[in-house]
Amino acid sequence: MIQTIQWVNNTIRILDQTALPEHERYIDIVTVDELIDAIKKLKIRGAPALGIAGAYGLCLGMLGEKNSEDFLGEIEAITGRIRRSRPTAVNLTWGLERIKHIVSIHAHLNREDIVQKAVDEARKIHEEDLACSTSIGIGGSGLISDGMSILTHCNTGGLATGGLGTALGIVFEAHRQKKKIHVYVDETRPLLQGARLTTWELKKIGIDHTLIVDNMAGYLMAQKKVDCVLVGADRIAANGDTANKIGTYSLAVLCEKHRIPFYVAAPSSTIDSRIASGAEIPIEERDSEEITCGFGKRTAPLGVKTYNPAFDVTPFDLITAVVTEKKIFYGPRYDFAN
Amino acid sequence: MIQTIQWVNNTIRILDQTALPEHERYIDIVTVDELIDAIKKLKIRGAPALGIAGAYGLCLGMLGEKNSEDFLGEIEAITGRIRRSRPTAVNLTWGLERIKHIVSIHAHLNREDIVQKAVDEARKIHEEDLACSTSIGIGGSGLISDGMSILTHCNTGGLATGGLGTALGIVFEAHRQKKKIHVYVDETRPLLQGARLTTWELKKIGIDHTLIVDNMAGYLMAQKKVDCVLVGADRIAANGDTANKIGTYSLAVLCEKHRIPFYVAAPSSTIDSRIASGAEIPIEERDSEEITCGFGKRTAPLGVKTYNPAFDVTPFDLITAVVTEKKIFYGPRYDFAN
Repeated sequence: MIQTIQWVNNTIRILDQTALPEHERYIDIVTVDELIDAIKKLKIRGAPALGIAGAYGLCLGMLGEKNSEDFLGEIEAITGRIRRSRPTAVNLTWGLERIKHIVSIHAHLNREDIVQKAVDEARKIHEEDLACSTSIGIGGSGLISDGMSILTHCNTGGLATGGLGTALGIVFEAHRQKKKIHVYVDETRPLLQGARLTTWELKKIGIDHTLIVDNMAGYLMAQKKVDCVLVGADRIAANGDTANKIGTYSLAVLCEKHRIPFYVAAPSSTIDSRIASGAEIPIEERDSEEITCGFGKRTAPLGVKTYNPAFDVTPFDLITAVVTEKKIFYGPRYDFAN
Repeated sequence: MIQTIQWVNNTIRILDQTALPEHERYIDIVTVDELIDAIKKLKIRGAPALGIAGAYGLCLGMLGEKNSEDFLGEIEAITGRIRRSRPTAVNLTWGLERIKHIVSIHAHLNREDIVQKAVDEARKIHEEDLACSTSIGIGGSGLISDGMSILTHCNTGGLATGGLGTALGIVFEAHRQKKKIHVYVDETRPLLQGARLTTWELKKIGIDHTLIVDNMAGYLMAQKKVDCVLVGADRIAANGDTANKIGTYSLAVLCEKHRIPFYVAAPSSTIDSRIASGAEIPIEERDSEEITCGFGKRTAPLGVKTYNPAFDVTPFDLITAVVTEKKIFYGPRYDFAN
């Protein structure tokens, strides 16, 4: 399994995802600032992995503030700073809140012990995510039949989680069950998580795959080359509306047109029941440079205006099913698929 | 006006579109091999511009074979070689056929005069395309209202034609008529004709525009930020099915879902009446490297399999109207738009 994130000697060790697929490089993060920078630059990414990173990050902050006069106030401040580093994925907030809860119920202990309790909880979050990935994979694998051709978007594998993955975890489990499958990998502009990360994971496991640019998905579907679409999620509202990597919504519309099942896979920690619908999910907008000079070369005129939302929202009525570690929620489109 | 292609002293001078937007570099093409290389590498591109390039290219070939024993046989061979350089855009074949026709009706003349007739015809094709662009712009501008936000795909401006453009020609004409418009520019992976060329043209003319990556179009439409989509065409079958840059079909499906007009603009030379439907249009597949090392840096694992069709086909039932220089053909979706 890929060691996407680890807690080693009071530091966070991550596989730098911006260096992949060329270099498999690990970096040690020793301060909250370094973690925030790594999250903003997508050195670590993927909603479930961000949940773990948030939890470890708060532990790192607590270690640094162990002798602070206002220990609880510092914890609050650090939580806010980490949370704001990426606003859309709810798992980051969720991981932070779990650590804060542990701190609050152990507030009577000495600082050393509080930090230890927090680290224990962060490790537990990490272990739970591993188990969660496995459950999603097993639960979702029933949706994948032998001979299927699956289209994926962004990266939802081991690099995005503490385990084997969410949507890609289902693909890995279907492969483990000896189902013969083929994966079409959306490159996922602007940051090419599909081209750089998903292909790298599929190659490691040995699953047949083909890389495409995002705008080819419709043409593939028209040619009946796609049997289902499997994506992850960054936040799921109470009504099932799902925020995920930009381009996901277009895929869902294309699936509706071609009567192809559209599946979302995510840990239940991605469900934000405080939010009624997708309209309330904050959508992160990112720098122009990601579009205009993505990979070492300027490819648009200087000063061009861009619009760069990192996510979009897919209404639940376009979703066939949401696979979590606990159960599969079938959407209004389920009838299409069956 | 941009000098996309010119016939100067028995050579073809083109603006090298692979160097834009960084460098405005002209290159002189003196052999058929150089022209074929330039076409394959998209130094010159766009269906109408390829019609002109094909015509001038055959003239270049005739000049080189002026003393050949089998002059007509050589013309036939050169025609085939140029035509095969890009199989989808029918204009290339159309331009070549027009020159061949002129040769056949002047076969009784001496070589020098035949070549001169061919060059005259190629210049005429070029001039007609300029007039054609103007007519498309004026004819189509009625579809654009003041305040509209228009989404474009690939490049359909002066760089793609011998005039102001097809779809972008309509935008330029609406702007000339002082309509206040905004253009969302699809970057158009893999070769980024939108990011590199369309933004460059819009900036030159001074039209407000925003660059997006292709997979953002659906999210923009869901937010009601797009009033219509305007694209060009590489080949239109007798039934109105339209081949155009990969990603066009997905846009048409998204337009249907959001009840947004979807317009195609092309000279009537793009209509291939010998072909009954889009299913018969040959779709060019291009090199892997365009996807895996597009921006001067490898962005996918070595040896990854790709699928890289340069075009897709949009059925006529998803098209609101096709604007040609002669008339506007309204499609079955016209009612949606009105």
